[in-house]
Amino acid sequence: MKNRIPAIRERLHAHGADAVLLSFLPDIRWACGFTGSNGLLVVGSDEAHFLSDGRYAAQAHREVEDASVHIPEGSLLDYAAEQQLIGEGDTALFQADHVTVAKRESFGEKFPAVKWKPVSDFLVEAVAAKDSYEVERVRGAQAITEDVFDALCRFIEPGQTERAIAAEIVYQHLRRGAERMSFDPIVASGPNSSLPHARPTNRKLRRGDMVVIDMGGVVDGYASDMTRTVAIGRADDEARAHYDVVLDAQERSIAAAHAGMTGKELDAVARSVIENAGLGAYFSHSLGHGIGLQTHEWPRLSQRVEHTLPEGATVTIEPGVYVREQHGIRIEDIVVLRADGCENLTTAPKELVVL
Amino acid sequence: MKNRIPAIRERLHAHGADAVLLSFLPDIRWACGFTGSNGLLVVGSDEAHFLSDGRYAAQAHREVEDASVHIPEGSLLDYAAEQQLIGEGDTALFQADHVTVAKRESFGEKFPAVKWKPVSDFLVEAVAAKDSYEVERVRGAQAITEDVFDALCRFIEPGQTERAIAAEIVYQHLRRGAERMSFDPIVASGPNSSLPHARPTNRKLRRGDMVVIDMGGVVDGYASDMTRTVAIGRADDEARAHYDVVLDAQERSIAAAHAGMTGKELDAVARSVIENAGLGAYFSHSLGHGIGLQTHEWPRLSQRVEHTLPEGATVTIEPGVYVREQHGIRIEDIVVLRADGCENLTTAPKELVVL
Repeated sequence: MKNRIPAIRERLHAHGADAVLLSFLPDIRWACGFTGSNGLLVVGSDEAHFLSDGRYAAQAHREVEDASVHIPEGSLLDYAAEQQLIGEGDTALFQADHVTVAKRESFGEKFPAVKWKPVSDFLVEAVAAKDSYEVERVRGAQAITEDVFDALCRFIEPGQTERAIAAEIVYQHLRRGAERMSFDPIVASGPNSSLPHARPTNRKLRRGDMVVIDMGGVVDGYASDMTRTVAIGRADDEARAHYDVVLDAQERSIAAAHAGMTGKELDAVARSVIENAGLGAYFSHSLGHGIGLQTHEWPRLSQRVEHTLPEGATVTIEPGVYVREQHGIRIEDIVVLRADGCENLTTAPKELVVL
Repeated sequence: MKNRIPAIRERLHAHGADAVLLSFLPDIRWACGFTGSNGLLVVGSDEAHFLSDGRYAAQAHREVEDASVHIPEGSLLDYAAEQQLIGEGDTALFQADHVTVAKRESFGEKFPAVKWKPVSDFLVEAVAAKDSYEVERVRGAQAITEDVFDALCRFIEPGQTERAIAAEIVYQHLRRGAERMSFDPIVASGPNSSLPHARPTNRKLRRGDMVVIDMGGVVDGYASDMTRTVAIGRADDEARAHYDVVLDAQERSIAAAHAGMTGKELDAVARSVIENAGLGAYFSHSLGHGIGLQTHEWPRLSQRVEHTLPEGATVTIEPGVYVREQHGIRIEDIVVLRADGCENLTTAPKELVVL
């Protein structure tokens, strides 16, 4: 891990604050390495303190870097107040986009002499810019998902239900070492595939179906996310034509992607390909999203994102076309953005597979 | 569904408010039946309005009862403000234990003429008191988990890893119709079983291990949760003795459980059995928790819970004993509380199984 506490201090000083209380677990993991389910991290100008409960005593001492570890008996917040881990009169930031109003009230009660200041998106830009260790974790998770897709191509046949395939996806990920799924897999066949976020049903696959398979697993804390669309038995001409448009949009976006462009500019590359094919109305979502310790994280690649994309960001590129009651097609890879282009972390083939 | 909007209105009036904005999805599902992943519910004195986005148009119209359905193009909150779904000058409650500080700020900006009032635990007592439809859903989910345990008893053998067993648990739940898992399964063997919240590792099962298996799946939105502890090949005398104490504590708690007692009183039944056996220091967590649309919901059964438990509450009863580096034992059922006792929704046998 690369000295992340100093990076947090820089942001702290940019906000004119004396300390920050981090409570969002993925940010805490990013900052100090702790992987458990309960913790707080207080970073001040000179000190950093990590707090967790007795269940995580051994784990915290093993995992946490660059912060003193505290394992109080009772409430973490009470302890932080008693020990004055945030000094009286100090200005302290808290994560307004993660802290509930009720929790915020308790900050006020427990630390009456601290000036609390809300901050949103405090670490998103730093978290987005992955270092090589993190890129390799995402690549590793994606490799498992690609293996699963390979196995699925041998497993899928007409007559199977979407749910049976989804169960197989989960099982194959876990057997290959995924800690859990990045999200519940999407297996959407025939008309169901026209819903971008369909949930698996008991519908049986039929000849002529397009099947959207969107899946990912978490390995070493990092998420994968890949979509492939396959045809059962045959694909009709329209489905094939739409597939080619989506693939073209996806490949052109990857060819165009680089750090320093905006999310809107990259989204526009895919959108214009699909619009030029007369299918603009059928591309009903944005192009992609950041991925890492969270499956969906900053930055988004959408028509509304005006900020530039940082170097090292791992993002999905996933255009789609959805024709109500007919079929849906989506193709999704993960790439890492570089100054002069991007590297695709996904190697699974993208020509239309007919099973 | 039983006229839940009127029950919400009663609470509204008890708080002296004109409207409530519900944003916590399990509560929205409970109140109006919507099962999707984005929605808001505004309940006023005379009207109720449900809002979701275009992805859920058909589903919302199909599922939502007792509220008008709105599917705006843009932000749900912007639309609610434009349409004055909360009237100017009105006092409106929001869920302080679920709304972030950043979101709360946006309420103020979008509804400048509304008086916002935070409320915590707004619906927990009503949600806890399950009707017969809900009890049957929990029973159904639990039945699937019991089937999975049956299958596991044939699957488990020395040499298998905790992770392989966890993968099997997930697969068998999904194949039996679970929508997803209630939580990542715990499979903790030998010394690992002494950690109440251990995550599955690549450790292989050995003769003499105790193995704690804690698992549950979600069916029709309702969660199951069951723990059994099995022995591999044989159990040593101490493990057997501890097993008997935990089982005795669990059965006595179930025999004593009824609506109207406090969580503390019920916890004390199990705790005193374990303390009388000289093992009090090894029972390091609380006795149980409410379960339903959420895996962990109000009420908790712990030493600190002084309020009474409502009739119809479905709660877990799960005492445990954990001897560091040696073994852990936990036995967990779900019961539904009645005025004069409780009904166990779990039928899986509890004598020690040696595999």
